[in-house]
Amino acid sequence: MRAWTIDHSAPDHLALAEHPDPEPGPGQALIEVAAFSLNYGEAVGVVPHGENGTVPGWDAAGVVVRAAADGSGPAVGTRVVTLGPGGAWAELRAVDTDWIGTLPEGVDLGEASTLPVAAGSALRGLRRLGPILGRRVLVTGAGSGVGRYTLQLAARGGAHVIALTTDPAKEETLRALGAHEVVVADRGASGGAWLVERLSDGPVHGVIDMVGGAIRVAAYRTVAPGGTLIAMGHSSGAAETFPHGDFAGPLGHDRAITSFFLLHDGAGIGADLTWLAGLLASGGLDAGVGWRGPWTGGAEALAALAEGKVPGKAVLDLPSAT
Amino acid sequence: MRAWTIDHSAPDHLALAEHPDPEPGPGQALIEVAAFSLNYGEAVGVVPHGENGTVPGWDAAGVVVRAAADGSGPAVGTRVVTLGPGGAWAELRAVDTDWIGTLPEGVDLGEASTLPVAAGSALRGLRRLGPILGRRVLVTGAGSGVGRYTLQLAARGGAHVIALTTDPAKEETLRALGAHEVVVADRGASGGAWLVERLSDGPVHGVIDMVGGAIRVAAYRTVAPGGTLIAMGHSSGAAETFPHGDFAGPLGHDRAITSFFLLHDGAGIGADLTWLAGLLASGGLDAGVGWRGPWTGGAEALAALAEGKVPGKAVLDLPSAT
Amino acid sequence: MRAWTIDHSAPDHLALAEHPDPEPGPGQALIEVAAFSLNYGEAVGVVPHGENGTVPGWDAAGVVVRAAADGSGPAVGTRVVTLGPGGAWAELRAVDTDWIGTLPEGVDLGEASTLPVAAGSALRGLRRLGPILGRRVLVTGAGSGVGRYTLQLAARGGAHVIALTTDPAKEETLRALGAHEVVVADRGASGGAWLVERLSDGPVHGVIDMVGGAIRVAAYRTVAPGGTLIAMGHSSGAAETFPHGDFAGPLGHDRAITSFFLLHDGAGIGADLTWLAGLLASGGLDAGVGWRGPWTGGAEALAALAEGKVPGKAVLDLPSAT
Amino acid sequence: MRAWTIDHSAPDHLALAEHPDPEPGPGQALIEVAAFSLNYGEAVGVVPHGENGTVPGWDAAGVVVRAAADGSGPAVGTRVVTLGPGGAWAELRAVDTDWIGTLPEGVDLGEASTLPVAAGSALRGLRRLGPILGRRVLVTGAGSGVGRYTLQLAARGGAHVIALTTDPAKEETLRALGAHEVVVADRGASGGAWLVERLSDGPVHGVIDMVGGAIRVAAYRTVAPGGTLIAMGHSSGAAETFPHGDFAGPLGHDRAITSFFLLHDGAGIGADLTWLAGLLASGGLDAGVGWRGPWTGGAEALAALAEGKVPGKAVLDLPSAT
Repeated sequence: MRAWTIDHSAPDHLALAEHPDPEPGPGQALIEVAAFSLNYGEAVGVVPHGENGTVPGWDAAGVVVRAAADGSGPAVGTRVVTLGPGGAWAELRAVDTDWIGTLPEGVDLGEASTLPVAAGSALRGLRRLGPILGRRVLVTGAGSGVGRYTLQLAARGGAHVIALTTDPAKEETLRALGAHEVVVADRGASGGAWLVERLSDGPVHGVIDMVGGAIRVAAYRTVAPGGTLIAMGHSSGAAETFPHGDFAGPLGHDRAITSFFLLHDGAGIGADLTWLAGLLASGGLDAGVGWRGPWTGGAEALAALAEGKVPGKAVLDLPSAT
Repeated sequence: MRAWTIDHSAPDHLALAEHPDPEPGPGQALIEVAAFSLNYGEAVGVVPHGENGTVPGWDAAGVVVRAAADGSGPAVGTRVVTLGPGGAWAELRAVDTDWIGTLPEGVDLGEASTLPVAAGSALRGLRRLGPILGRRVLVTGAGSGVGRYTLQLAARGGAHVIALTTDPAKEETLRALGAHEVVVADRGASGGAWLVERLSDGPVHGVIDMVGGAIRVAAYRTVAPGGTLIAMGHSSGAAETFPHGDFAGPLGHDRAITSFFLLHDGAGIGADLTWLAGLLASGGLDAGVGWRGPWTGGAEALAALAEGKVPGKAVLDLPSAT
Repeated sequence: MRAWTIDHSAPDHLALAEHPDPEPGPGQALIEVAAFSLNYGEAVGVVPHGENGTVPGWDAAGVVVRAAADGSGPAVGTRVVTLGPGGAWAELRAVDTDWIGTLPEGVDLGEASTLPVAAGSALRGLRRLGPILGRRVLVTGAGSGVGRYTLQLAARGGAHVIALTTDPAKEETLRALGAHEVVVADRGASGGAWLVERLSDGPVHGVIDMVGGAIRVAAYRTVAPGGTLIAMGHSSGAAETFPHGDFAGPLGHDRAITSFFLLHDGAGIGADLTWLAGLLASGGLDAGVGWRGPWTGGAEALAALAEGKVPGKAVLDLPSAT
Repeated sequence: MRAWTIDHSAPDHLALAEHPDPEPGPGQALIEVAAFSLNYGEAVGVVPHGENGTVPGWDAAGVVVRAAADGSGPAVGTRVVTLGPGGAWAELRAVDTDWIGTLPEGVDLGEASTLPVAAGSALRGLRRLGPILGRRVLVTGAGSGVGRYTLQLAARGGAHVIALTTDPAKEETLRALGAHEVVVADRGASGGAWLVERLSDGPVHGVIDMVGGAIRVAAYRTVAPGGTLIAMGHSSGAAETFPHGDFAGPLGHDRAITSFFLLHDGAGIGADLTWLAGLLASGGLDAGVGWRGPWTGGAEALAALAEGKVPGKAVLDLPSAT
């Protein structure tokens, strides 16, 4: 098969090359990939640092061409969306059946390919906050791929949703996606007090933070006792410096920060992907595709993504796409 | 009655003065105080910043002289240990009956007075870690009042206990209190790698951190997926700077830091104090009193505590002590 | 003041009589009651077994006529909805400020009075299930006062909602309230297999059970591993007999049943009532009042409720209602 | 290899016969079995109802003869203890490396073989109760294999341990294993009141119930708000009939019963088995072997176990035991 493979001798660390077909394990189905989506973490983390000759890629949608040998998972011909630790940017992918969602009719394979990491992280991150019905949830980096899905799913879950962005032009879009409030942050904001002041109705129950750095420090100050900040993204590339006392109890008991990584929390994600795909089909989710083109343009798309030039998700189609 | 009261015109911000007797609410008992203990947070936080004329003090032991009007709590004459948001450093104290533990015969009132904040925080903090039986628990600032009780209770709870201290002379004591391993930290340690390397058997399930600053940053690096660091003390007085990526998922999913403050988690603490007092009585806990004297020496004891010159808990006795 | 008081010499165990005004504690506001609602548990549990001369009643709405002495809670003149362990069926009520919700303009006091036990239990019970977004929730006794609010809130929380009722005529109403599926149970149903078969898409994540008896046994069989059945109501009046093996692990690990009682879970309920009242105001909740009349008809309304003749909530208005 | 296989034409449903060697998957090691232990659930559940020709057996200890192909797990020659859904009663066993514990020197392989189901269930069940340090835990069927390990581990975890047994002769043994109180139940006991009365210090935080039936109903009555009963064993063979109201909130809010099955909760059990084996080595656990003999006596041992004639664990040795 052909696949994008890590090649550190290439200018973009990537080459579209011949690669041996994947060999499915007993609990894996073989998928003919029709489209895949790109993630920021792949652009800045996986590709520059991956092992030469490996095939990256977390998200792919396509059609089952060989069912799993152990009888689990979907039958040949089923349209599916898949998550895995790699291997998505290729004509064929072997994937654990527990990590496969099935697609209803009418869902575009390219749109479906945006779901696994972006909407899967949004859903699992929100669940890690505990019950959100009737509670306040803050989403930072709200205009990112994960951020957009988080807004939509938090609103669907009955939360009062507050979106934080540095781009005032996005306010209308963020409200349309479900934000009840939009806070526009000054890019140079520091300390935590400014954000506490901007949230006029007081602390929040949960934060999904896509940014890190000074934004994370400020967002932590807004968390109520019993609440949680999920450190899901790190797009600022900055360290977090918490002033002495920010973790002290009198500021609020039992306020947590926790790390998050979907690929270590993937058990049962296939069923979640099936549910998310159903929302796409019924118009209950907006995939927010901001770049779409043939898969031969993969390196170009990845560069645009790393530079923050893709307003939403980047999707690449294979010629076989049906 | 006489009481230590906040007086910012005095050199130590404290004066032993006449004060109106406390008026118990319907769910409060009135206690004749026999002894109280001092806490580092009182020395550096409460006394310098408290309101003039108020009586500080979280921990006091004594005898009930008036039972609660609503019928709850212990009868007149009962020997008790009490926690409250203030009012302990006085001849009389009014205290919620839910925050009163009863003492078995043979427990010294001065030793009992060390329990509420120090052992109460240790017990509640360990419970916040979830089940610890057969799991690894790291205690930083292990030689402090809270640290010593945490070592003892974590060992009693079946954990494998690792004590972190900057004082190599304390190693034997910390082992005697229950530490299975003692790590002596260089005071100038920075970054997180050094501590990870010192824990040769890998990550820990939980951390009770009394220090903050660079120690907290290092300790967080040792937490296993699903584990928790409790930010209980802040003796370093330093900010925490986490390098970019320390919260990133690939380093370990679902690793949490959480704030802690016993006074906001006090529901039912009376029953816990009764249990802890039973351990004192049976020799199952070492109170570790490092300073003891008449209550007229309160300001002097507090200054010694703030300077780190008290090896353990400081206890002050009132003349009425029985 | 006048109040409905327990009087076991009266035919309905109740008399509308003179009663001393309540004396608010320091953290209590005094409310002039405008309307109260009745609950099934009051009809069958509290009134027949209460102490002579006491004033029952959990739910009341009205206006603050004296603010709390400790400065907490709403000011005089605020329209509020209140929960308490008793005292609602009276012209005046003293109530803890933590148990008081405030009402937006435009919310009818009678409709608001239906919220505390019915919608409060629904909200707290659903939260006890953990995250429900994208998960399946079964509600038994779905046509009851609590059941109706549970359907609405579970749908708002993004769950797939399955309503169980014995009355086929209610199907349309239950769907309008948010049920995605309605299962009509045969009143004589026994064993658990029948319900498992009716849920064609497999087990559920959570159950809010208002019925008990054979329905509870059947509903427990539908719970997935990691899921929970909340035993919230007991309207069947029947015992639960679980066949040998129903709790055995091979049927599904970690499937829980738990007891529930709002009055023991009331901390912070005031903020929840404020949020629920906001939903009423915006049309996001249907109060479902099935009986409304002057409070002098209280005994009659209660008898109707106990006999199952009230289709929804029963609300009684005091002459002072504004 | 030779193995005990299900044979429903045999009087005991078992035959010691030739069987194809197991073929390890990529994440499985191959073990030469030295000893295995029998469990009550195998005697009454697996063997009578298993599929003809399959090899039963959850617990086996032995030596690795082929390491896992994927590089995980112990090396050839390592002494290990293993858990799996079957296959233990044979000369060779293929087992997932995540389900393998390693043995320190000095641990007898037969004693180690008692750990997986019995001590693993005890440890995981106790963890499901949440923190137990300083809390009261009730163990029913305390003299059973799982019960004995639960007593020991609950005591090690700092709980106050109450053992329930029907055999007054066991009291001394149960106390030696860690029980602080022993309650001897009348075999004909019914209802729940009797047990509540016997626990003079009030409700318990957790129950590990090995018995079911009327004992389970009584034990549930003793659970405090926030507490949990783990339905771990079902030796009574009886249904549970809870009187109307036993789940009602006024009896106590948030009291849970939950199903338990170790084989569905096995992730990471290998590390737990290593820890448990360390306790065996240091004398911190008593394996309580009540039957030991050559594996050719397997059917006889199983029959004795099913009839309740084995006082503790039954262990069978293979000739190859080293």
